[in-house]
Amino acid sequence: MTIKLIGISKSTATLSVIVCLNELGLPYQLEAPANFAVDTKTEDYLANKHPFGKVPVLIDGDFKINESRAICRYLASKYQGKHTNTILIPKDVHQAGLVEQFTSYESFYYDPPVSKIVYQEVIYKFHGKESDPEIVKQACEDLSKVLDVYEKLLEGKEYLNGEYSLADLLHYPFTYYAYSYANRSDLWDKRPNVKKWWERLRNRDAWKKSLEDIKS
Amino acid sequence: MTIKLIGISKSTATLSVIVCLNELGLPYQLEAPANFAVDTKTEDYLANKHPFGKVPVLIDGDFKINESRAICRYLASKYQGKHTNTILIPKDVHQAGLVEQFTSYESFYYDPPVSKIVYQEVIYKFHGKESDPEIVKQACEDLSKVLDVYEKLLEGKEYLNGEYSLADLLHYPFTYYAYSYANRSDLWDKRPNVKKWWERLRNRDAWKKSLEDIKS
Ligand SMILES: N[C@@H](CCC(=O)N[C@@H](CS)C(=O)NCC(=O)O)C(=O)O
Ligand SMILES: N[C@@H](CCC(=O)N[C@@H](CS)C(=O)NCC(=O)O)C(=O)O
Repeated sequence: MTIKLIGISKSTATLSVIVCLNELGLPYQLEAPANFAVDTKTEDYLANKHPFGKVPVLIDGDFKINESRAICRYLASKYQGKHTNTILIPKDVHQAGLVEQFTSYESFYYDPPVSKIVYQEVIYKFHGKESDPEIVKQACEDLSKVLDVYEKLLEGKEYLNGEYSLADLLHYPFTYYAYSYANRSDLWDKRPNVKKWWERLRNRDAWKKSLEDIKS
Repeated sequence: MTIKLIGISKSTATLSVIVCLNELGLPYQLEAPANFAVDTKTEDYLANKHPFGKVPVLIDGDFKINESRAICRYLASKYQGKHTNTILIPKDVHQAGLVEQFTSYESFYYDPPVSKIVYQEVIYKFHGKESDPEIVKQACEDLSKVLDVYEKLLEGKEYLNGEYSLADLLHYPFTYYAYSYANRSDLWDKRPNVKKWWERLRNRDAWKKSLEDIKS
């Protein structure tokens, strides 16, 4: 049975799951709510899909799960190594712990400023809403400090934990929108290790396929 | 070799790990930086303990890991079921996925408003800093909406995923400080399922031991 993904192609959280599915070589069917703002807030959606009225939601046979990072962990635990060689969560308990450590850097240090930049400079603009230059300025300063740390973390390494992992994967969506649509590429490009890391990520086949997937 | 935990007893993130260690029946030694503000920002600390200059950091033999949620996942994967019966991350891939889903609710919906309340009304006060009533008001409104969702999620269940898990555990520190020190107990108490959930959590032996541990 094909995996069903409830989400929309412009959603960053949906995009994380799409990259994950592609890394693991899993076919899926994207099912977009017809009227996003309304359909994700119905009584039925809140009771049976996502209690906070969000996407994505994954349906795998009779199993249902929401929240992008949880979905990716689930997919990795169940399917990694079956259709592709990509290992997102290492079997070794110590390596898995370190992947979680870098995943936590994404959730708690990287995501807050980069998502602010994307909301202010891409999503608001798309909806014709004014952005707040003070918020953008502060977010760029915060992100710069985080990227300074990443520059050191990536010294001599191809990916955050050495090998590609879930930790790198979760950086895709917001980095992509900030880098390519908010014209903030200099933040990454002026740091050599970070620049090479993002180049490496952008060149992965699963990422290229994901960009194709969300175009259609 | 006893597990070493670098952290301070007043730190919420350190407290998550302490509860986790106690749930798993693991002896540990808390090592507090002598001068917190200075010692967590030295070149050596940033290079070898935590690149963002934070606590907690766990040292288990020659393995080192930071970030509270990552540490708890590591401890559960490695040690659960060995000294106590507490299972924080179920072996079943679907149940583990759902625990991650509820853990994500904690990280992305519950933590932001409740941590704001605790910062504003407990930590700032402790440091003699003024709190901002507008921020507190907004955070209380946001948390109320989240707790309305929790009230429904907890209907007919003892814990978020039915059985006690990592998802519940991660709610301890900020709930404790908001409930007991920010005088916001009404937010939990006026929702019957949420009230019973927090009573259940407060009555667990590992939590009571953890409060004793951070007293000394
Ligand atoms: N923590 C969630 C965030 C999901 C999220 O914010 N999704 C957005 C689209 S990218 C959404 O559904 N927004 C609708 C809303 O908040 O009402 C995850 O990682 O899945
Ligand atoms: N995401 C981290 C947060 C850790 C954190 O914020 N720790 C605080 C104490 S509760 C800290 O070390 N603050 C020092 C600082 O930010 O300079 C975790 O969960 O471990």
